[in-house]
Amino acid sequence: MASEAADKLAQMSLNGAQSVSHGPCSNTAEWKTQLQSLSGLPESYALTKTLVFKPKTPKSQTAVLIVLIALEDSDTNSALLSKALDVKEPRFAQADAVQAALGAKPADVSALTITKENAATVQVAFDQRILDSTAQVGIHTSSSEQTAFVSGSEIKSYLESTGVKLTVIDFSLASIQAASKEVVAKPAVKAKAPAVVEGAELIGITVPKEADFSGWYQQVLTKGDMLDYYDISGCYILKPWSYSIWEKVQKYFDFRIKGLGVENCYFPMFVSAKVLEREKDHIEGFAPEVAWVTKAGQNDLEEHIAIRPTSETVMYPYYAKWIRSHRDLPLRLNQWNSVVRWEFKHPQPFLRTREFLWQEGHTAHMSEKLASEEVMQILEWYQGVYRDILAVPTIPGKKTEKEKFAGGLYTTTCEGYIPATGRGIQGATSHCLGQNFSKMFNITVEDPSWKDGMPEEQKKLHVWQNSWGLSTRVIGVMVMVHGDNKGLVLPPNAAQYQVVIVPCGITARTTDEQRKTLLDAVLDIEKELKDAGIRAFADVRDTYSPGYKFNDWELKGVPVRLEFGPKDMEKKQAVTVRRDTGAKDSVALENISGQIQTLLDTMHQDMYNKAKKSFDDNIKICKTWDEVVPALDNKNVVLIAHCDSEECEDEVKENSKGRVDADAPEDSRAPSMGAKSLCIPFEQPEGEHKIVPGVTKCVQCGENAKHYTLFGRSY
Amino acid sequence: MASEAADKLAQMSLNGAQSVSHGPCSNTAEWKTQLQSLSGLPESYALTKTLVFKPKTPKSQTAVLIVLIALEDSDTNSALLSKALDVKEPRFAQADAVQAALGAKPADVSALTITKENAATVQVAFDQRILDSTAQVGIHTSSSEQTAFVSGSEIKSYLESTGVKLTVIDFSLASIQAASKEVVAKPAVKAKAPAVVEGAELIGITVPKEADFSGWYQQVLTKGDMLDYYDISGCYILKPWSYSIWEKVQKYFDFRIKGLGVENCYFPMFVSAKVLEREKDHIEGFAPEVAWVTKAGQNDLEEHIAIRPTSETVMYPYYAKWIRSHRDLPLRLNQWNSVVRWEFKHPQPFLRTREFLWQEGHTAHMSEKLASEEVMQILEWYQGVYRDILAVPTIPGKKTEKEKFAGGLYTTTCEGYIPATGRGIQGATSHCLGQNFSKMFNITVEDPSWKDGMPEEQKKLHVWQNSWGLSTRVIGVMVMVHGDNKGLVLPPNAAQYQVVIVPCGITARTTDEQRKTLLDAVLDIEKELKDAGIRAFADVRDTYSPGYKFNDWELKGVPVRLEFGPKDMEKKQAVTVRRDTGAKDSVALENISGQIQTLLDTMHQDMYNKAKKSFDDNIKICKTWDEVVPALDNKNVVLIAHCDSEECEDEVKENSKGRVDADAPEDSRAPSMGAKSLCIPFEQPEGEHKIVPGVTKCVQCGENAKHYTLFGRSY
Repeated sequence: MASEAADKLAQMSLNGAQSVSHGPCSNTAEWKTQLQSLSGLPESYALTKTLVFKPKTPKSQTAVLIVLIALEDSDTNSALLSKALDVKEPRFAQADAVQAALGAKPADVSALTITKENAATVQVAFDQRILDSTAQVGIHTSSSEQTAFVSGSEIKSYLESTGVKLTVIDFSLASIQAASKEVVAKPAVKAKAPAVVEGAELIGITVPKEADFSGWYQQVLTKGDMLDYYDISGCYILKPWSYSIWEKVQKYFDFRIKGLGVENCYFPMFVSAKVLEREKDHIEGFAPEVAWVTKAGQNDLEEHIAIRPTSETVMYPYYAKWIRSHRDLPLRLNQWNSVVRWEFKHPQPFLRTREFLWQEGHTAHMSEKLASEEVMQILEWYQGVYRDILAVPTIPGKKTEKEKFAGGLYTTTCEGYIPATGRGIQGATSHCLGQNFSKMFNITVEDPSWKDGMPEEQKKLHVWQNSWGLSTRVIGVMVMVHGDNKGLVLPPNAAQYQVVIVPCGITARTTDEQRKTLLDAVLDIEKELKDAGIRAFADVRDTYSPGYKFNDWELKGVPVRLEFGPKDMEKKQAVTVRRDTGAKDSVALENISGQIQTLLDTMHQDMYNKAKKSFDDNIKICKTWDEVVPALDNKNVVLIAHCDSEECEDEVKENSKGRVDADAPEDSRAPSMGAKSLCIPFEQPEGEHKIVPGVTKCVQCGENAKHYTLFGRSY
Repeated sequence: MASEAADKLAQMSLNGAQSVSHGPCSNTAEWKTQLQSLSGLPESYALTKTLVFKPKTPKSQTAVLIVLIALEDSDTNSALLSKALDVKEPRFAQADAVQAALGAKPADVSALTITKENAATVQVAFDQRILDSTAQVGIHTSSSEQTAFVSGSEIKSYLESTGVKLTVIDFSLASIQAASKEVVAKPAVKAKAPAVVEGAELIGITVPKEADFSGWYQQVLTKGDMLDYYDISGCYILKPWSYSIWEKVQKYFDFRIKGLGVENCYFPMFVSAKVLEREKDHIEGFAPEVAWVTKAGQNDLEEHIAIRPTSETVMYPYYAKWIRSHRDLPLRLNQWNSVVRWEFKHPQPFLRTREFLWQEGHTAHMSEKLASEEVMQILEWYQGVYRDILAVPTIPGKKTEKEKFAGGLYTTTCEGYIPATGRGIQGATSHCLGQNFSKMFNITVEDPSWKDGMPEEQKKLHVWQNSWGLSTRVIGVMVMVHGDNKGLVLPPNAAQYQVVIVPCGITARTTDEQRKTLLDAVLDIEKELKDAGIRAFADVRDTYSPGYKFNDWELKGVPVRLEFGPKDMEKKQAVTVRRDTGAKDSVALENISGQIQTLLDTMHQDMYNKAKKSFDDNIKICKTWDEVVPALDNKNVVLIAHCDSEECEDEVKENSKGRVDADAPEDSRAPSMGAKSLCIPFEQPEGEHKIVPGVTKCVQCGENAKHYTLFGRSY
């Protein structure tokens, strides 16, 4: 074999590179030791590792082995490998399989073991870092007793000359990407790739919303710069583009609750098991999802400590302590924090994540009436967040007994609708907890209306409590409702940049002075808009073409694009392009900020109206059960007269299920889901549909109907 | 015994209560079962538990046992018991000790076992909830086979009649208070208590700042409504009064960094072990304090997951991914979040807590120069938070090599000083990380100045990084610097209420109309101040006297009190009282907001100046080592010419240590601490003190001095 290897080195036309000999080495540590004793090596070099994997292959077929060639300290990762090469469960190959395919022992395999003759038995996964390495790279030649130092590109060229299938993988991102579906695998230049515009898939959305909603959603979020995947499943990074939307939601809501007298505070994220488990019904709902801290540094903790899934049991012992008299009421506290619910269901960015940001308000009142008034006020503001910031319509109502907050008295909700999937989605909930928790935690005041002579037991009044929460889920709903096949479509009140100004019409013939005049004018427009309180951004990056910028900002969903070129300057105007409709128009530079503000307001209203129409058009009132499943299958939610019984609600769910395909991805499974009750809308049908007590029957069970209830397949 | 017990029941003058007989019961569950089979019991009743404890007692003395009598579901807690009764380590008493003291088996002991004869052998800890119980309370009489139902107060009366020492404890707060030093123990009415104004200790500060700083600090925080203790050690609740200060700090800083182009984002709180441990130097500093999640619900996690102690290793893998070109620089991200460092040292609210709120900025730049400029800008804003919001002076400088951030290039800091203890305290730090992390995480761009023909290895440019953080510690520093023996003293720019208006001079002779006129005028003043942007609050609570309100707001540190009575109304004026100095003055109602704003500005400046003078007066330049320890013992920090060597710094620490008393509480131990380097101030002494290279010697080791370094005992 030795002479064959020498031939290969010659093939690789290495200038001055030659193979050095040393003792055998079965791993990199031994290899390093062997090399240390030698002289005449390059001043600095990197070593490689070569690993051979066998993917899961049907028994009827011969497996194509995978030879992974990487820098020795690269974080190679079989999950990434599996995704990059689209193979199933790669495992280290047995020595006999390696011998059969490559005629060598695993420890001896290197890039040079692959020849034109055996190239078809394997494919190569090649570490991008080898190509990036500025130092020379050490590889074994004929066996583990021989080492040559060459450049990364030389190894790649050699491999390409053998005709082996080669995929370059960026393993520097391995740990990040392991959990992600988006894999950074670049096909090698010579590999046959489908004819696509180069780099197109890196920029635009390649999956239509209508065809693969889940894939579309993921692309829109990552390519729209909202979010990145993380190496812990169910956790995501909120990038500034999405976090700024959350800040706008915070500002809107925080201002309002402060006006109501709510104060912000911060309770610890940790809860002792004892406190967490105090309210049984409540904790039953959360227990399976609680994350437990059991170790600090090297020490096992004596008592395990939970990370809050919500803060009722964290806060209420203190309410018992702090509320000494009716003069301490109402007590209204809120916190903006994160909570952890370690769900094992399929995670979904923004909608179902293991850690999420939210606010949780917890208040205590003298009476049910005062508590209820607040519940409704908060719900109105939750609808306001959707309506005024996100241009998303919601339907307010009450949750059924089955769907209400565990341990509470009743739950109000605003429910949204995702047209693309026809599924309902809970927007935010405002709960009246009644006196259940105050009895549990002994939160009492002396009733100020109690007088001597009245029964002693009437003296003690258990306070009435509420809790209410709104999470970053709102961002996901907004994306799903408005986004299109060009990417995000941000409503003007949510967008970090409402307007981008793109200078156009600069050509090779444009003089420096003309160029400067144009850019100055662009900056003037930006300033005028900003001074008027419009979030404008002048994109004067000179390394990108206007076309690139158009695509970039469309992907990111900026509501208005202002194009401004020499001809516009002459005409004292600018061209506006709406992100939501694509409509082009022009505006005079005179009072441009007023006109743009009007345009933004119009767009907000148009986006809301469009979403509202889509929701309204897809609420079907069903008079008989036969209409229900077809309506659901047709991406509707259904409004049906219902008896309010929990058992009947279970029946609705059961009877509206379709065929289940367990292997199908989350969203394509949706049509098979049973319908849950979304809410009992506060606004009940009137006129011909009005429920006549004792006459109108439940559509499912035929008993007397109590309310129209909105049912739907849901998130 | 049965007849004796009957006598006692008679003594208790129970109307119609009688003892019922049943089988023996060694615990409450058995007791309940026994009672279930009986008829003629009260409709509702509560059961008690009686537990006997023996505290740790020197062998030379006879232990006084503790009989704990509580409702069966009370959360009794030996730590609370220990504190409430001031006994050491109470443990369940052995049967023979119980027999010796009370002549009964443990299972048979009840309140009625205690008699005048044996009262001296025990003391009683009595559950407040028994007194609060509206239902009748079941107790054993002569043995566990007998039960009587009586009222809680009857039990207490009986016990008092025996002369036994009795302490009522509020066990409903047990779990909360376990971690707290503040114990809710009310001496029983008949117990001998020192002559104090009833309830005084619940309102005012009882521990002078000078005498017991640590006790004072705790009282000021809890009684000033800033914070509450929590049942997990090292975790605290930030109540609205302190959280609102944090919101003001956030607003100040967030506005400024956004102007610089920093964007907010949110990274997950969880880190995989692999990512966390990637940078070895860095993680070495944090590893012993990392909290690990190992379980979710009932499932053990396959890989343990850390809660971030800081986010360098969380974020930088993504910087490597996101920074593709020099056009992506600078990348400046910030997050407002909480981090966890599970310290095992004595916790200190705000200063050393296991979870704390902070902001962490992480930025990447093209060059060291650009990175350094930002480091200094951020440090200036950190000083600004202290100076402009908290009226606290700090000294900016560079950390020594020994004290810099692990893994960084250099650390800048602003250092504060606590006059009451003479200790220095790190205010906030702004680090230049250099290229260490960018090399570790491979964060590179192509150098735009690279041209063909230049060496290939110059093409790749590792970015220059910074990280900087400011935490809720700032609040603790502010409290320690300004607070006095009346409570908190809040600087005007930090206070949630800058002015409280207290209506005065309402007497029994005041007519309803006069009262209404006065209160209307108070509300008018509040409105005028609020309209001018002053955070005013009219305290028109009619159930509290002006004197009570004065104390209340003094405790909470509100900067200005406005007193307004009928005479003031006549004179068209109001009386102002400054919280910082107590100075009284009057202001005309005409343009009151302008005058109050001037007063607030003056107060801010006065508070800052006072703190500045105290800091300046306590920085001693020491020319010889002999001066150093006496200066430190005198509550100074010292500025000494120093050689900059790490070994010498260790020597300074070692040589400045005093006698160590391991049992002493944190703060009284301070004088024994060795002095650490606080910083090398940017502003070095000039004139006579100026360092002459090669001539001026290090005060500690005698080698050539490089810089004046600030040393101090510190937090």
